Amino acid sequence: MTWEEVDAAVARGAGIILVAAATEQHGPHLPLGTDSIIGTELALEVARGLDLVVAPTLTYGYRSRPLSGGGQRFPGTTSVRATTLIAVVSDILREFERHGFRKIVLLAHHMENQHLLYEAAFEVVGPTATNETRVMIIECPYPPGPLIEDEPTVRPPAVGLDHASVLETSLMLHLRPELVHEDRFVDDPMITDPGYDLLPIPDGFTAASGVLSGSRGASEQIGERAFDAAVQHVRAMIASEFFANSD
Amino acid sequence: MTWEEVDAAVARGAGIILVAAATEQHGPHLPLGTDSIIGTELALEVARGLDLVVAPTLTYGYRSRPLSGGGQRFPGTTSVRATTLIAVVSDILREFERHGFRKIVLLAHHMENQHLLYEAAFEVVGPTATNETRVMIIECPYPPGPLIEDEPTVRPPAVGLDHASVLETSLMLHLRPELVHEDRFVDDPMITDPGYDLLPIPDGFTAASGVLSGSRGASEQIGERAFDAAVQHVRAMIASEFFANSD
Amino acid sequence: MTWEEVDAAVARGAGIILVAAATEQHGPHLPLGTDSIIGTELALEVARGLDLVVAPTLTYGYRSRPLSGGGQRFPGTTSVRATTLIAVVSDILREFERHGFRKIVLLAHHMENQHLLYEAAFEVVGPTATNETRVMIIECPYPPGPLIEDEPTVRPPAVGLDHASVLETSLMLHLRPELVHEDRFVDDPMITDPGYDLLPIPDGFTAASGVLSGSRGASEQIGERAFDAAVQHVRAMIASEFFANSD
Amino acid sequence: MTWEEVDAAVARGAGIILVAAATEQHGPHLPLGTDSIIGTELALEVARGLDLVVAPTLTYGYRSRPLSGGGQRFPGTTSVRATTLIAVVSDILREFERHGFRKIVLLAHHMENQHLLYEAAFEVVGPTATNETRVMIIECPYPPGPLIEDEPTVRPPAVGLDHASVLETSLMLHLRPELVHEDRFVDDPMITDPGYDLLPIPDGFTAASGVLSGSRGASEQIGERAFDAAVQHVRAMIASEFFANSD
Amino acid sequence: MTWEEVDAAVARGAGIILVAAATEQHGPHLPLGTDSIIGTELALEVARGLDLVVAPTLTYGYRSRPLSGGGQRFPGTTSVRATTLIAVVSDILREFERHGFRKIVLLAHHMENQHLLYEAAFEVVGPTATNETRVMIIECPYPPGPLIEDEPTVRPPAVGLDHASVLETSLMLHLRPELVHEDRFVDDPMITDPGYDLLPIPDGFTAASGVLSGSRGASEQIGERAFDAAVQHVRAMIASEFFANSD
Amino acid sequence: MTWEEVDAAVARGAGIILVAAATEQHGPHLPLGTDSIIGTELALEVARGLDLVVAPTLTYGYRSRPLSGGGQRFPGTTSVRATTLIAVVSDILREFERHGFRKIVLLAHHMENQHLLYEAAFEVVGPTATNETRVMIIECPYPPGPLIEDEPTVRPPAVGLDHASVLETSLMLHLRPELVHEDRFVDDPMITDPGYDLLPIPDGFTAASGVLSGSRGASEQIGERAFDAAVQHVRAMIASEFFANSD
Repeated sequence: MTWEEVDAAVARGAGIILVAAATEQHGPHLPLGTDSIIGTELALEVARGLDLVVAPTLTYGYRSRPLSGGGQRFPGTTSVRATTLIAVVSDILREFERHGFRKIVLLAHHMENQHLLYEAAFEVVGPTATNETRVMIIECPYPPGPLIEDEPTVRPPAVGLDHASVLETSLMLHLRPELVHEDRFVDDPMITDPGYDLLPIPDGFTAASGVLSGSRGASEQIGERAFDAAVQHVRAMIASEFFANSD
Repeated sequence: MTWEEVDAAVARGAGIILVAAATEQHGPHLPLGTDSIIGTELALEVARGLDLVVAPTLTYGYRSRPLSGGGQRFPGTTSVRATTLIAVVSDILREFERHGFRKIVLLAHHMENQHLLYEAAFEVVGPTATNETRVMIIECPYPPGPLIEDEPTVRPPAVGLDHASVLETSLMLHLRPELVHEDRFVDDPMITDPGYDLLPIPDGFTAASGVLSGSRGASEQIGERAFDAAVQHVRAMIASEFFANSD
Repeated sequence: MTWEEVDAAVARGAGIILVAAATEQHGPHLPLGTDSIIGTELALEVARGLDLVVAPTLTYGYRSRPLSGGGQRFPGTTSVRATTLIAVVSDILREFERHGFRKIVLLAHHMENQHLLYEAAFEVVGPTATNETRVMIIECPYPPGPLIEDEPTVRPPAVGLDHASVLETSLMLHLRPELVHEDRFVDDPMITDPGYDLLPIPDGFTAASGVLSGSRGASEQIGERAFDAAVQHVRAMIASEFFANSD
Repeated sequence: MTWEEVDAAVARGAGIILVAAATEQHGPHLPLGTDSIIGTELALEVARGLDLVVAPTLTYGYRSRPLSGGGQRFPGTTSVRATTLIAVVSDILREFERHGFRKIVLLAHHMENQHLLYEAAFEVVGPTATNETRVMIIECPYPPGPLIEDEPTVRPPAVGLDHASVLETSLMLHLRPELVHEDRFVDDPMITDPGYDLLPIPDGFTAASGVLSGSRGASEQIGERAFDAAVQHVRAMIASEFFANSD
Repeated sequence: MTWEEVDAAVARGAGIILVAAATEQHGPHLPLGTDSIIGTELALEVARGLDLVVAPTLTYGYRSRPLSGGGQRFPGTTSVRATTLIAVVSDILREFERHGFRKIVLLAHHMENQHLLYEAAFEVVGPTATNETRVMIIECPYPPGPLIEDEPTVRPPAVGLDHASVLETSLMLHLRPELVHEDRFVDDPMITDPGYDLLPIPDGFTAASGVLSGSRGASEQIGERAFDAAVQHVRAMIASEFFANSD
Repeated sequence: MTWEEVDAAVARGAGIILVAAATEQHGPHLPLGTDSIIGTELALEVARGLDLVVAPTLTYGYRSRPLSGGGQRFPGTTSVRATTLIAVVSDILREFERHGFRKIVLLAHHMENQHLLYEAAFEVVGPTATNETRVMIIECPYPPGPLIEDEPTVRPPAVGLDHASVLETSLMLHLRPELVHEDRFVDDPMITDPGYDLLPIPDGFTAASGVLSGSRGASEQIGERAFDAAVQHVRAMIASEFFANSD
């Protein structure tokens, strides 16, 4: 997209979506960029049905938590501090405002970014309207509950310890099969959430493989259906608030 | 406690617990200090069974979110920025370390403090052990699932939109009945989580009363049993990691 | 107080007072919370005569200085950095403004908070009026000179090395006698101010007991009269600026 | 790349390269991602000859300057503050250190990132060696002087006002011809550098098209040769310091 | 001084002194640089008797307070935020440490810099010794009480509202008579300290002239004697701690 | 200057200039204050022809880079972090705005301050006009190309490795001959710029003397002519934008 095309998009009232993802271990079989890839694909597909510009994805997210992403003891997981993420997102939001965008979507595909995207938006637009800019913060792209009718175990990672497991592996088999090492699938049992975190992270606190509840059972078919479910879910939320008469 | 008493506690290997609460609207019937009161009482009771110093509670927490606490449009809700909360908690942790404490518990009684307590601890002790200080981060003092066997609807606020509702109202009836205005109980239906947040906060986005799922049905009895359940839950977690041989 | 009560207070033009205290060693005979206790009691009593909401006291203050509070070598003294205190207070001031308060009092009961409360207020309201919010900064609640006519040695700690000494001990005997260990009174001579500070803090730079000028001579009677003197002093200042026609 | 592959790379002594680019207007004919695309392609090609991991490119860079990139009046140009960029890069460097990388390359493909990458590296590793980590900062990937022997006017943008002009347009024609709008080439004369900047940016201070010295004359052939020259230049610098015996 | 001369000074164990002054209104008769001039002259004279390098004076200090310097409503008064002053001083201290200096003196000639110099030193060297660096913080260069035996009213500004008054005017008459406008002396009565500050600064809160207690009575003779008294006072403090055997 | 004189200057529409210099090694023959001295003299001389107030020079600048100033391994070089310099300059700019100045010049005499002065100005006035304040940022006081017609080698330091070399040495011979040690001139060959920086700074990466291209050949005559050339260059830029009808 050129600057003139952005200008034209603003002029006709388009929105803009920014995905905040992560560079984080996803087990022995998925790439570090899993969150960025899924998040970006999701945004592109969601945008197809709406007048929505897709900004470059943030590939570095807030620190991985041991019980939801494996934590900061894995090589390759590359995170920024909370204050840094807030600074990056609020700077970018101010730029979107300067461009003239008034419908802005922040979409997290990394549950640890929770609250921090909200904070960045709060710093920029505040609690009460002072201009027309509105920011929608979507902290989880998946609807609550099972994603697929006849696959009740396919649930979003936000619910708990599903990381690099059936859902994400299936999504990657659908979106980037060439990046999935099916020969390295892990069959670990789901680890138990003790209800707390510990720092420094003790040995054995999280799954050694980085897969928090097993990846066996993942399939391209599950991935396709889960992806469609997420696209519909996100698109419906955005459309209802920002494009009520245009969808 | 005097400084010499702290010194003695450190010398015998005591731990210390810091509650991170909030000053936040809790409907027309509960005081702004609800989170601080419950959190402090909980810590004091938990400490009774363990060698644990209770530090002064943090009464100002991270911003209230519209769908879990009503958000920053209510008068009385008095919050600090994410960066401020991280700074406060990490400064205090460094002081605990300087005193000589090696078993530190951070207990949130305000779900929006999530990630931020973790971040503060991470900034101070890091992911891998460099000295003997260990920090346990408990983001929710309630066990998952129903708190009371025969009251399946009494669930922790972290699960969703239970704010100033049956659980918290019951706890306050148990702990500080004189601060509960029973004549102002609200019978609103539980509001629906749309799956996203919006800033500025639109009119009608959250319950006008500040009660997210109704407070009728609250009772001192439920409060007592829920309090006991939470105390047992928190005490067990701390004991298992920090006082394995002393409980 | 509920949020609706805050709303009503704002509507009728009430003010709000925030005490910035400390968690700091006060010798072998006084609790770490001495500054918070005295400061809070003072604010509550001052408020009785005025339409003034009392916000939760800040229990963690700026670093203790060796020659006015003993400094950061005592266990138990738990302080925050200057930048942190400024952030906390300015965040809270912005919330008070959002609630609608236009008469705000910052009251320090910890002399090291000096300048930092001023800075926080400056960051929020600035030097010249842009709206109607006014912030009064009281860095010392005690009038200059002797507090009690016939007890010329009872002077406020701001004058020098009176920390955990006759004034504060007497105040605590008046306000919280059960927290004062009279059997641990210290009779040290007043230490001499060399005119400078040294970091790292050398051994012997401050009183080993943490009592900078002796606590003997303290009494409940002195405490009561000093408390009354401080209440009158603070109330008069606030009334003269904020409630000129209502006192 | 999976985390295990990163771990293996560290174990065998690989280096890692991070490109700091920008999202910035590049005239009517080039996409906003021009700096990111060229920088990433460059790093991937450089890495082919060396044992070098390529980290995800930073797509948001420091503010565009009016006389080198058009400045912050163009829609689409999306920049972060200086403090933010320093925070992002230093956070990432600390993660690379934690992974075990000891040979780190920071490569700017956006001249405004100058000094800020150096600062980030300085904050992490300092001026004198304390461990084995070394950071190489390359602020311009192009050698000084003409890039191509018989095309003396093809010079790197760092020299002056060549932005979205012959060099960058040619590189994009070589790397991503489908993103170049040849029908929108601009033939503006090179604007004159007055020797200073002005804020707010006056009307007419920079080229209205965003092309600072004309894009006509750009060709795929020039792009290919310039790309090769830059690859050789960057690879030689890295090899000489980090892989002295392996090239 | 050249870098080799600094290196030699470090090698022989010299100390270094940094004056933190201000650019602040000093009435109609004294220049904005009064604090910087007096502070620098003082340091140079103190250093004459000791092996002490004088670093360039910090000419921008913390905000002027209305009751001690007139406050931020006067044109010409040019101050930095508290966080900025802490950052500047701690950066410089880290550089002094890197050079090898182990005896560092911070000297304030602007009472509003109080606590902030201490904070900067604390951030760098901490409360307990980890290396040999020691920092002496002198917040007021004048001894308590009258400076001159037979001139009991000549007292340091730290005591109260003496700003641009007899003491400072006399010092300038001694040090830089050509910068003193004797024809503009002000004879205002000393303003009364109400015991609090107000922001925004109300009209009439401080002396309109900027002279807080009158400058008449100032003379070169008083200036000379006060200067000598301050030099002796500061030199004695430094000598006693840092040059015990060399004075 | 007194505050009333500043007030009068503002009233008649004067501008103000702030020099951002450095305390940095300049070889064995020039003082650490070289940048501050030259920058200040330049500003004073430039101001002579224009209605321009000269603010106190910033004597501490951003970190010295190894290839343009020798870097942070020399004793005596005393620098601040990038974030600190931005904070200092933006605080001061806000004060200039408060005073009423609308024509502000930032002049760097230390090339490492590049971008950071721009950033500070951007933070204060932004890219588009909201009030009448204009900030001119001059990052190099020397015109491009040779400064003196018949001395083609006398070029500004911004071009490359000329630090403490012929240009700066000549300027100091002209402005402060008593501070130049002619007996310590260095005849080192110009060091080669490898195209990158390395941290930690390797031994031998920069000239051991701190003189990056030799000081022999410097003379008072060259200094005088170069100084005049710089004064004319800077004055012309300022006049053209700020005093178009008054020069």
